[in-house]
Amino acid sequence: MPVASYAIAGHGVRNFISSSSSSIHRHNFPFTVRSILKITPLYSPFNRNYAAAAVSSSSSTRDITNSIENAGNFTWNDVFEVSQSENGSSDLGGFFQKINLCNRGSEKRFDFIPFVIEDQIVGYVHNGFVDHLSKFKDVFTIMKDNAHETQSGHVTLQSALKTPESRTEALGNVVKCLGEEVFPGIRNELYPVTSSYGGRVYFSLERAAAPYFGIKAYGIHMNGYVEKDGKKYLWIGKRSETKATYAGMLDHLVAGGLPHGMSCAENVVKECEEEAGIPRPISSRAIPVSVVSYMDIDGYRFKRDVLFCYDLKLPESFIPHNQDGEVGSFKLLPVTLVGDVIRNTEFFKANCNLVIIDFLFRHGFIKPEDDGYLKLLQSLRSGDCS
Amino acid sequence: MPVASYAIAGHGVRNFISSSSSSIHRHNFPFTVRSILKITPLYSPFNRNYAAAAVSSSSSTRDITNSIENAGNFTWNDVFEVSQSENGSSDLGGFFQKINLCNRGSEKRFDFIPFVIEDQIVGYVHNGFVDHLSKFKDVFTIMKDNAHETQSGHVTLQSALKTPESRTEALGNVVKCLGEEVFPGIRNELYPVTSSYGGRVYFSLERAAAPYFGIKAYGIHMNGYVEKDGKKYLWIGKRSETKATYAGMLDHLVAGGLPHGMSCAENVVKECEEEAGIPRPISSRAIPVSVVSYMDIDGYRFKRDVLFCYDLKLPESFIPHNQDGEVGSFKLLPVTLVGDVIRNTEFFKANCNLVIIDFLFRHGFIKPEDDGYLKLLQSLRSGDCS
Repeated sequence: MPVASYAIAGHGVRNFISSSSSSIHRHNFPFTVRSILKITPLYSPFNRNYAAAAVSSSSSTRDITNSIENAGNFTWNDVFEVSQSENGSSDLGGFFQKINLCNRGSEKRFDFIPFVIEDQIVGYVHNGFVDHLSKFKDVFTIMKDNAHETQSGHVTLQSALKTPESRTEALGNVVKCLGEEVFPGIRNELYPVTSSYGGRVYFSLERAAAPYFGIKAYGIHMNGYVEKDGKKYLWIGKRSETKATYAGMLDHLVAGGLPHGMSCAENVVKECEEEAGIPRPISSRAIPVSVVSYMDIDGYRFKRDVLFCYDLKLPESFIPHNQDGEVGSFKLLPVTLVGDVIRNTEFFKANCNLVIIDFLFRHGFIKPEDDGYLKLLQSLRSGDCS
Repeated sequence: MPVASYAIAGHGVRNFISSSSSSIHRHNFPFTVRSILKITPLYSPFNRNYAAAAVSSSSSTRDITNSIENAGNFTWNDVFEVSQSENGSSDLGGFFQKINLCNRGSEKRFDFIPFVIEDQIVGYVHNGFVDHLSKFKDVFTIMKDNAHETQSGHVTLQSALKTPESRTEALGNVVKCLGEEVFPGIRNELYPVTSSYGGRVYFSLERAAAPYFGIKAYGIHMNGYVEKDGKKYLWIGKRSETKATYAGMLDHLVAGGLPHGMSCAENVVKECEEEAGIPRPISSRAIPVSVVSYMDIDGYRFKRDVLFCYDLKLPESFIPHNQDGEVGSFKLLPVTLVGDVIRNTEFFKANCNLVIIDFLFRHGFIKPEDDGYLKLLQSLRSGDCS
């Protein structure tokens, strides 16, 4: 590991510590706080897309999502140039906007019918998507009822599929058969299918297919932070430009879906090693601190995600190193700047915004005196948090 | 201020720092962790009352509440003798029980009718309590509708009472007239009447009367903690034996209702000074971290409380001193012991349990691996959190 000497500056000229796979360099940020306050407060390269979103159909929503998911066409310099409020702004509008980004399409909730296993609702399937499934008569039973001009009924599995293993295999074949065209981004990573966290696992399903079945997905997100002279800094990653999803966008130091059979604590240690090269003696100090949840409908996809949030206070001397090629580079940014980046841009992968807003609450950067405090706090758990 | 030298011990024999109005002494806790594990795990002097609660009528509920509110008949030694789990137990049952203590009587919610001002619901009044109010024909208008054998309708103020001042005066006279017999514990402290936090204040009402009108009440509760060698300790108060409510019970270092016209931040500084002698240079470092809420129906009283939670990391050398006579003494206890006291006893004033459970979540003492994690986390905001 290369060694770098550096300092975290207070006000005035700031030095940002950065780390990439090839080198560690020192970025001398050439603006004082006062000078950057003059920069346009709302830096949003996606405004054009958002105007379009207001009149979106199902297909245009997909286009917008893709553009957002691959919209990391900005540099760290663009991040540094985001207006930074010296004592934090009290306008929470930009935060509410990011909550909404993760909770789209609630008005389309009734276009979905329940996916039921053994009398438990484990997911939701779009009425249009049911047509894909109806071809697999040995796997699915579809009970549709349009008699009263309402979309009702439910999807279940054929009664012959009694064991988790047989269901996992049958659904695995469906995913293979429909392939990348229907389920883009297949990862060969299985998610457990349950009705609630810690509950019985009915079978396992390919991660990329989970949103099409409205399966609840659980993950861990970790805020890695440093405290220096009473000021807090967050390590932020910029996703690799070659990632299939959200390429080039800002991300947590460490985050990952919760695979079948692994505890949150084990997953944090594993992802710390893979994503940031954090050794177990340090990563085992990460503490579970909160939970955020959201419910996002986008075309046929119904995401019902619950993220377990962790905080890890890192030593000042620690420099992260990505091991799995998924992160391009890391930088250590003042929490106040990170808050302003969330407020004023869409640089972060959408669900990271929620976890960092939760961090801002727990560390006192958002205050009861800010208009909308209670509403914003509650909106961090807009999804089914079970 | 007297000066005391002391140490916070790790495992084995523990020293607890204590502070009372007259002296500071060092309590040598004579048990090792292993020996105290042998003590009965569920220490609950109120079990008898709880058996009664299962068959309670409105009046017996009141009796139980009074016994709880005045049930601080235990000593610090009883606190120290509570079983302490070395690494924290994963059984959350005792925590759920404390959440329920603050959220009683939800099945009686429909015995209440809305209290409406200018088309906004600002509270709820019990059908039986309406009889008291109906005597004040120049103050209240009561719209009752029993036509369909359901209790419906609403209470509002006479249309002549147009200004906040005239309403405050009229309600103040009602409180004076009905007096201590109806509203025990009158404090001459006014609470703002709103439909939500930060919203328009329609008038102000005596604090002791607020639950009888189902007014939303806001307060601040502060966890004062110390970190030493990676272990965390909480300063806990024991309420004065002469307090009108919850005498002798355990309490936060600092807590208070939010009076009309005062911000949470100002209130924290004020209460820090009054309740624990914490000077402004230290108290201004308290950070807002979370919110808990509950909804408690007890006879005619409908509490709809929202508590803003603060954390203050105190210097090891700081010793609190109560200034207003409301606290008998303070002690610094390991967070793990505080968790076990909450889990296994009813020593704490009921709503303090919620704020400390929230602390246990945010500081990693309750983990996603503990059965019921998500349910417990959500139950901390069982009330209307707006």
